[in-house]
Amino acid sequence: MLDYPPAIRRLIDALRRLPSIGPRGAERLALFLMQQDASLADELAAAIGHARRAVRPCPITGFFTEGAHSPMLDDPRRDRALLCVVEHASDVLALERSNAFRGIYFVLGGCLSPLDDIGPEDLRIPQLLDWVRREGISEVILGLNPDVKGETTALYLAAELKKLDVRVTRPATGLSAGSALDYADPVTLTHALEGRKVL
Amino acid sequence: MLDYPPAIRRLIDALRRLPSIGPRGAERLALFLMQQDASLADELAAAIGHARRAVRPCPITGFFTEGAHSPMLDDPRRDRALLCVVEHASDVLALERSNAFRGIYFVLGGCLSPLDDIGPEDLRIPQLLDWVRREGISEVILGLNPDVKGETTALYLAAELKKLDVRVTRPATGLSAGSALDYADPVTLTHALEGRKVL
Repeated sequence: MLDYPPAIRRLIDALRRLPSIGPRGAERLALFLMQQDASLADELAAAIGHARRAVRPCPITGFFTEGAHSPMLDDPRRDRALLCVVEHASDVLALERSNAFRGIYFVLGGCLSPLDDIGPEDLRIPQLLDWVRREGISEVILGLNPDVKGETTALYLAAELKKLDVRVTRPATGLSAGSALDYADPVTLTHALEGRKVL
Repeated sequence: MLDYPPAIRRLIDALRRLPSIGPRGAERLALFLMQQDASLADELAAAIGHARRAVRPCPITGFFTEGAHSPMLDDPRRDRALLCVVEHASDVLALERSNAFRGIYFVLGGCLSPLDDIGPEDLRIPQLLDWVRREGISEVILGLNPDVKGETTALYLAAELKKLDVRVTRPATGLSAGSALDYADPVTLTHALEGRKVL
């Protein structure tokens, strides 16, 4: 049976390994790259290679950095006494777009998960405790996901951080802005009622 | 406001130019490529470059070919007197998977579309007429999509091909296998009734 040439099959195989791209999607992307003029394919291949070579996680914050300097730590308008711990680099951008935080982010690299064999030594927890001790951080916000793994990790980190005599907080849980009360799940409603505010 | 380093933004921009990948999807793919070990990113960049360099459209059939030979034309089990005209290379694989055609495919490169300024000179129509004339083709199946553009192109090609005294056919239109009659659209039902067969 006729098939695509080996070079196209290799490209389809590589594209299939990307998240949320199935066999049909990978085939369509590969054919798109073959049928457009060469500039997009060249630019994509070059951009992948350049990003992998040029970008490193910052040894302190864990966020991506290009070159020797970290724009986050170098920014004099950011409050270095305030630290926000997040799971992944993408969480940094989500919080940053809210414009509600002007301190330093700390990327943990994941969450504690005994089922996946991820313990404290697999995350950047020693680096976090070091940095808090060394920099005299006044408050650590645990910006972890409000799910089971995130809650577990937050409890563990809170216990460790309190030994260092630092204020530890969590973002509020409750109703999403613009959401409808009758679509909210029971746990969210419980949190929203428990955390109710006087007007 | 903090943002990804320029190398990651460049990668996100390149990924956004792919079909059906939006801004959030491009960001997720870029972060995936950055956070996996380097082998997937390297392999993807290399596969794109290799496919663009190694693969060419066959000057005769228009299907992808790697190297000097066309596996389709070289296959002695394929019937060279039978030609199936399709719009795109991806249509070749769809027909081939049905195992119902053992002739030669001819990729037209698109359809006639006056609104998009695509006329006969923009498609591989001269090459098709040449090949039919030169090879003594006995039958040309017009495997174009059963939509307005495909029908227009099929009518045009049928008129041109009939001057060469060759049998011109179209795949049947009717109900899809496994479909439900009450979900079929009126045009499909009309085709199915008009093309009804004696049992």
